[in-house]
Amino acid sequence: MSLLVVGSVAFDSVETPIDKIDKALGGSATFCSVASSYFADDVKMVGVVGDDFGDENIQMLKNHKVDISGLEIVEGEKTFSYGCVYRDDMNIRDTLFTDLNVFEKFDPVIPEEMKKSPFLLLGNIMPALQLKVLDQMTDLKFSVCDTMNLWIDITRDDLLKVIKRVSLLVINDSEAKMLANEDNLIKAAKKVMEMGSEYLIIKKGEHGALLFGEGKIFSAPAYPLETVFDPTGAGDSFAGGFTGYLTKADKIDFGTMKKAVIYGSALASFCVEKFSTKGIENKTKDEIENRFNEFIALSRV
Amino acid sequence: MSLLVVGSVAFDSVETPIDKIDKALGGSATFCSVASSYFADDVKMVGVVGDDFGDENIQMLKNHKVDISGLEIVEGEKTFSYGCVYRDDMNIRDTLFTDLNVFEKFDPVIPEEMKKSPFLLLGNIMPALQLKVLDQMTDLKFSVCDTMNLWIDITRDDLLKVIKRVSLLVINDSEAKMLANEDNLIKAAKKVMEMGSEYLIIKKGEHGALLFGEGKIFSAPAYPLETVFDPTGAGDSFAGGFTGYLTKADKIDFGTMKKAVIYGSALASFCVEKFSTKGIENKTKDEIENRFNEFIALSRV
Repeated sequence: MSLLVVGSVAFDSVETPIDKIDKALGGSATFCSVASSYFADDVKMVGVVGDDFGDENIQMLKNHKVDISGLEIVEGEKTFSYGCVYRDDMNIRDTLFTDLNVFEKFDPVIPEEMKKSPFLLLGNIMPALQLKVLDQMTDLKFSVCDTMNLWIDITRDDLLKVIKRVSLLVINDSEAKMLANEDNLIKAAKKVMEMGSEYLIIKKGEHGALLFGEGKIFSAPAYPLETVFDPTGAGDSFAGGFTGYLTKADKIDFGTMKKAVIYGSALASFCVEKFSTKGIENKTKDEIENRFNEFIALSRV
Repeated sequence: MSLLVVGSVAFDSVETPIDKIDKALGGSATFCSVASSYFADDVKMVGVVGDDFGDENIQMLKNHKVDISGLEIVEGEKTFSYGCVYRDDMNIRDTLFTDLNVFEKFDPVIPEEMKKSPFLLLGNIMPALQLKVLDQMTDLKFSVCDTMNLWIDITRDDLLKVIKRVSLLVINDSEAKMLANEDNLIKAAKKVMEMGSEYLIIKKGEHGALLFGEGKIFSAPAYPLETVFDPTGAGDSFAGGFTGYLTKADKIDFGTMKKAVIYGSALASFCVEKFSTKGIENKTKDEIENRFNEFIALSRV
């Protein structure tokens, strides 16, 4: 089964209370693609970069067997660049700069052979672009949409259109409350479900994640990390691991989705251990299975 | 097996965003005793009240087979009274008044026959009083201590002495971070464990609870409540349910404690559904087992 990932590809400059890094590989499509590559055999990525993107980044994606024939490289333009500083309680980050560069004109044209992909992961980008992608897909079986507070705030109508059309929405707890205008998380989840998607995942960072659907709720624990080195990309890695596992399983039911949530959580827990995509690169099957089993053991009674 | 509960007995005046109540039964010993009575056959409560305590409150405790021969009723004095208002996001409450009344002179003298109790639950009261209780116990097998941010702040040294002497400390996440002076919860937990108690439970409210001990971690989910009617006493109900189950099981190991955490969580989830002790009064065995099973189903993969 093939999985199409569409999203941003970026250079991130990140400063945490522990260390800092400049112009490191980032972007929602990047983290999503690498994370899903551990499960789905055929991951195709659509995005845009400038001519400064760098061969080592191309090579890393190829090493993870990500099909980058849909990654447009625009000559004479620069790759989207983002800079931020995390505060001491790493849940808060302050944006230093957002240079959209080539990403400003990003028009996701899906290559003909990718339009038939049954699985789709819409990484966090402007909802209008996510809608354009949905318009082009011909044989969708399951679609996942990630988003962020900015889009809830400034392009709510477009986001609501996306939510109506995807199978599963993944957002964090504060975003769910914001989207539903409701303080109680469970009530907020119900309201968001009424907006249209069949399934909903609410990420709670250091408190794990909740999966809603089929009238059921699943509560996944968080991995007990003593050091969060860099939270950037954790949500994308979660979405990638989750959707990648579903693609591989090719089964859409609550039981399979529970396992997918744990695999997504495992990838997110690897992600935050290092800067950029380093935490999720070159993982072995054993490392992933061991972490999956650690998650299972955490909440087994 | 018998369980001795020592703590405060109070009248609570509580205002929530939904409703308010005046002079309702409260106090750590009250919630702890009622919650533990569903498991332990022999719950003994030590505390102090004024002559305004009221027969209906005595009767409620008797109905739950709580031995109140250690509850001192002081003629001419008034019962400890506490008033607070919860904000919209019910995690924050503002204290309106604290009238210690008879509780100001509380000197917990444990009746002779109760000193041999193998299980002890020290409800949230001043650590110096918890130490006095510990000094009187002769045959302790397992002791649990609950506390709060106030004592970490103003009587830290006494609290550290208590922690050294009890088997298990139960605190919430912000208190753990405050006690350890550490932002990362897992690191904070490790630091708190080094202070002396063999086991540690960190309550995370709407995010569940974590149990630490024997080099292991257990993550319990939270019950997905759409309405938290009144959070007062939830932590005490948790501690009561937890310690009550351990007393009944009369087994001190991590596996038994996991179940105890779920039973504690079940009692806490009942508690917040109504004002005062109403949520945990007159529960049937079936209601408790059903909620326990709902908790198990929430995190089962």
